[in-house]
Amino acid sequence: MPGHKRNAGCGMDTALFFDHDITEIDDFDNLHDARDIIMDCQNRANALYKAGETYFLVNGSTCGVLSAISAVTDDGDTILTARNCHKSLYHAAYLRNLKLEYLYPQRISGYDFCGAVKPEDIDAALKAGTSIKAVFITSPTYEGVYSDVRAIADIAHSYGVPLIVDEAHGAHLGISDRISEGAIEGGADIVIHSLHKTLPSITQTALLHVNGTIVDRNRLKRFLRIYQTSSPSYLMMASIDDCITYMAANGNLWADSLMSYHDKIIDATRQLQHLEIPDDKIVNDPCKVVISCRNTSISGSQLYDLLRTRYALQPEMACETYVLMIITGMDTIEGIDRLIEAVEDIDRRLGSAAFEDKFESVPLSNPNWCRELHQFEPSVTRFARDMRLKNDTLSTDTAPKAIKTLRDAWDSGFEEVILESAVGRIAGDFVNLYPPGIPIIVPGEEISQDIVSTIRDSLSKGLNVQGISETGKIRVIT
Amino acid sequence: MPGHKRNAGCGMDTALFFDHDITEIDDFDNLHDARDIIMDCQNRANALYKAGETYFLVNGSTCGVLSAISAVTDDGDTILTARNCHKSLYHAAYLRNLKLEYLYPQRISGYDFCGAVKPEDIDAALKAGTSIKAVFITSPTYEGVYSDVRAIADIAHSYGVPLIVDEAHGAHLGISDRISEGAIEGGADIVIHSLHKTLPSITQTALLHVNGTIVDRNRLKRFLRIYQTSSPSYLMMASIDDCITYMAANGNLWADSLMSYHDKIIDATRQLQHLEIPDDKIVNDPCKVVISCRNTSISGSQLYDLLRTRYALQPEMACETYVLMIITGMDTIEGIDRLIEAVEDIDRRLGSAAFEDKFESVPLSNPNWCRELHQFEPSVTRFARDMRLKNDTLSTDTAPKAIKTLRDAWDSGFEEVILESAVGRIAGDFVNLYPPGIPIIVPGEEISQDIVSTIRDSLSKGLNVQGISETGKIRVIT
Repeated sequence: MPGHKRNAGCGMDTALFFDHDITEIDDFDNLHDARDIIMDCQNRANALYKAGETYFLVNGSTCGVLSAISAVTDDGDTILTARNCHKSLYHAAYLRNLKLEYLYPQRISGYDFCGAVKPEDIDAALKAGTSIKAVFITSPTYEGVYSDVRAIADIAHSYGVPLIVDEAHGAHLGISDRISEGAIEGGADIVIHSLHKTLPSITQTALLHVNGTIVDRNRLKRFLRIYQTSSPSYLMMASIDDCITYMAANGNLWADSLMSYHDKIIDATRQLQHLEIPDDKIVNDPCKVVISCRNTSISGSQLYDLLRTRYALQPEMACETYVLMIITGMDTIEGIDRLIEAVEDIDRRLGSAAFEDKFESVPLSNPNWCRELHQFEPSVTRFARDMRLKNDTLSTDTAPKAIKTLRDAWDSGFEEVILESAVGRIAGDFVNLYPPGIPIIVPGEEISQDIVSTIRDSLSKGLNVQGISETGKIRVIT
Repeated sequence: MPGHKRNAGCGMDTALFFDHDITEIDDFDNLHDARDIIMDCQNRANALYKAGETYFLVNGSTCGVLSAISAVTDDGDTILTARNCHKSLYHAAYLRNLKLEYLYPQRISGYDFCGAVKPEDIDAALKAGTSIKAVFITSPTYEGVYSDVRAIADIAHSYGVPLIVDEAHGAHLGISDRISEGAIEGGADIVIHSLHKTLPSITQTALLHVNGTIVDRNRLKRFLRIYQTSSPSYLMMASIDDCITYMAANGNLWADSLMSYHDKIIDATRQLQHLEIPDDKIVNDPCKVVISCRNTSISGSQLYDLLRTRYALQPEMACETYVLMIITGMDTIEGIDRLIEAVEDIDRRLGSAAFEDKFESVPLSNPNWCRELHQFEPSVTRFARDMRLKNDTLSTDTAPKAIKTLRDAWDSGFEEVILESAVGRIAGDFVNLYPPGIPIIVPGEEISQDIVSTIRDSLSKGLNVQGISETGKIRVIT
C-alpha cells in the first residue's frame, strides 16, 4: 500500500499528492504507537507548545474532543460545559451516555455573539454539582472571544476536576509575545488545537495536548486509537510537521504579519459611518475580524453576498447582524488592502439611496473566481450556502430541562408532530439554528412553550432551523 | 479557513497540497449533509459500485466499521463476527457495549493464514444464537481469501439479520469482468471499502455503501457524522473522486494490467525449488502475492529483510512462514519483473550452503532507497519494524470464554500479574500476536491455562506479543 504506487501515470489532478503518501512501512513509524519519526514530530510540536505530551490528530479536533471527553468519564457521568460548544461535545456525551450541565454565556452587549465563560459561573456550578467529572469550554470562540482559562483552571483544580479547552480556533495563541497566552500555559489539562483554522497546515489536521496528572494518559491514548483511522494519512502528518517547523522558526514573523494586518484593518476602519469592526476589547483574537452591520439597512447575509459577489472576498460566515472574516499571518497585504477598500466602499454606498441602487454600479466579480482559484472543475458551481456553517457560537436565553439523557433519548423510538402539539413532549433530535448552530433543544430535553415560540419565530424570519421537517414537524420520543 | 491561505510562500514541502485544500465555503458543499458537488461525487462512486447509497469516508475504513456496527445495534446487543477481524470491530463493540460471538475460520492447510468464513458456520451460529443483531465478516482477508458473501448474505437475510462486509482490501472487486464480484453485488447490507489499499487514492480514503432496507440509513448517517471530523479534507475527497473517475474510465485497463502482472508472477514462479507462491485457488485476490518460505531454512521475517535490504523491494508484511506483497493495476512491469527476479534469485541461493553465505554476495541496496523514493528528510531513518502491521489475519484454535462484556472489562480497575498466576482471572486488556494481530484474548475473557501456554510459547519464540509488559505481566481486572 498505497494502491496508487506513487504512479502519477494515471493522469489525475491529485496525483501530485502521491509522492508524499506512504503508510506504516519500515522507517516510517506508527501514529498509534509512535516511537520513531512520528514521535520525533510530536515532540517537536510539544516543544513549540510546551505541554506535558502532544499527539497528532488526523481526524480533526473532532476526534480530540471525543477522545478527551471519553478519557475523563465513565458511563452516566456528568460534564459541565458552555452550551455554545462544538457538536463533537454532544456526540461524546451521546457515545459515553453522559449528563450535561450547561453554562449559558451572556451575549456581548450590542453584538449577537457569546461572551466569555465566567470563572464565577464555573465555581458556582462546581459548588452546586458535586458529581461533575470535568469542565469543557471553548476558547477562543468562533468570533474570537477569550475566556480566562487560567482562572477557570485554578477553580476546576480546586475541585479536583480536569479542565478541557477546545482551543480549535487558537492554535496561534502564545506563538509569540505579541499574542496572548494559550490554554496550555493557562493550566488546562487537555487542550485541542485545529491547525488548519489559523496556521499553515492542511484541513483536518489537529493536535491534542495533555498536561499534569489528573488525566490518565493511557486511557486517553486508547480513545485516540479508537476514534482515528488505523491508516492515518502521512500527507496530514507531514503537513503538521511542516507547519510546526515553520512556526517554530518563523512564529514571530508570522505574528508580526498578523498583528500588522489586524491593526491596519482596525485603524483604517475606525471612521466608518455605518459598518463597525470591533477592536480587540470585544474580539480578542487578532485572527478574527467581525464586520458588524447592526446599525445599517442590510443583514449579515447581504453583507456576505456583497463581499463575495462584488468584491471577490470570501467571508468565513454570516450571522444576522455581522460577517466574520479570518485573517492569519499567511495572508498578503494586498488581500488585506482589498478587504479594507471593500469595507470602505460598502460603507460609503450604505449612506446613499435604496439598497438596489447602492451596489448595482459595483461590477459583479467573475462568478468563477473562487472555483478558478481552487482549481476545481467547472461543474463545481452551485451554491450550498446554508451548509457553510458547522461551528456553534451563540447563546440562548432559554434553558430547557433534561428529562432523559442524550443517549437514551437519541436512541428512543420517535414520532414527528407539529410544533404546537410538541409542548410538554421530550425532544428526539437536535434542533439547531444555523447560524450560529447552537442547539435550541437537545434530545432528552422537554419542549416548552418558550422553545416552540423560539422555533416559530426563527422560522418566520426565514432563518435556517435544522431539525424541523419540511412540513414543519419536530421529532419527539414516543 | 484554511489558515495557510494557499500561500506557498512559507516554503514548505507540503505547500503543494494547499492549492486543492479548501473548506465548506460557498459552492463546495458539506460532506455531512451533501447536496451539491459532494453529492455528485458520491453519486459517481455509487454509479461505479451500484450500491443503494454510497458515502465518502475521510477517516478510513475504521470510521466505516464504527458507524456500520453502531447503526445496527443498541447497548448490550450481540454481533456475530469472525475472530480475525479488524480492531475497529472490537472498538465498536466497546463503544456500543456489545457482546461478541465468534467464528474461528480454519487455517488453510499448509499455510499460516485463515481461510474463508463458512456459510454453514454462520447458519449454525444464527440458529443457536437468536439474539444476534448483525453478522460482520472480512472478505477478502489481508492474504486475499474470499468468503462466499452471496451465500452468507442469503443466510443472514433468512434470519432477518443484516450482513456487514469489511471489504477494505477489495475495492477493486467487480471493477471488471476479469475480477470476481464484490460484496455489494453479493447482497451485503453494508460494505466498507478502503480506496487507498488497492486503488489509486490517497491513504485514509474509503467508501461506505449501504443496500436494501434492513439498515436505517438516517441512523447510519448520524454515526458517520459522529465518527468523522466536522472539517473533512477536500484533498481526500478530491482524491476519492479522481480515483472513481479514473476507475470508471479505465477499470478494464487497470484490471488487465493487474491480471497480467499477477499471471506473470504465478507463471514465472511455478518452477521454484524452495519458495512457493500459491495461485488463485488459495490466494483468491489477484492483488495479493503470498511468498511462502514454509519449506525453507529461512523465516518470513528473514525473507522480508532480504527483499528489502538486498533487492530494494518493499513487502507489505511478514508472518512466520510467508511474506505478503500487494500488487495493483498501478504497478509497472519493471517493478513486477524485479520482484520475479528477486524471488528467483533468492530461491536459487536457498539451495546452497549456510544462510550467511547464500546472500552476502548480493550487494546491499542503497540503505536510503525507501526514504529517497518518498522524499522524506534524512533524519527519517531508524526502523520501526515491529509496528508495521495493523491488520488482524490469523485464526486461533483457542476459544476463550467471555465472562464480562468488552466494555465492562476494559473500563474496570486492573492489576498486572505474572502470566502463570493469571489462570482463572479475567483479562483487562487485549493480548495480540503481531503478526498477524488477531487477539489471543479480549478484555472480559477468562484466561485459561491454554491461553497462558499460547502466550508463553509465542514469547519463547521471540514473537511480538502486544499486551504483555516488559516484565512479562498480563493485565487482569480486579
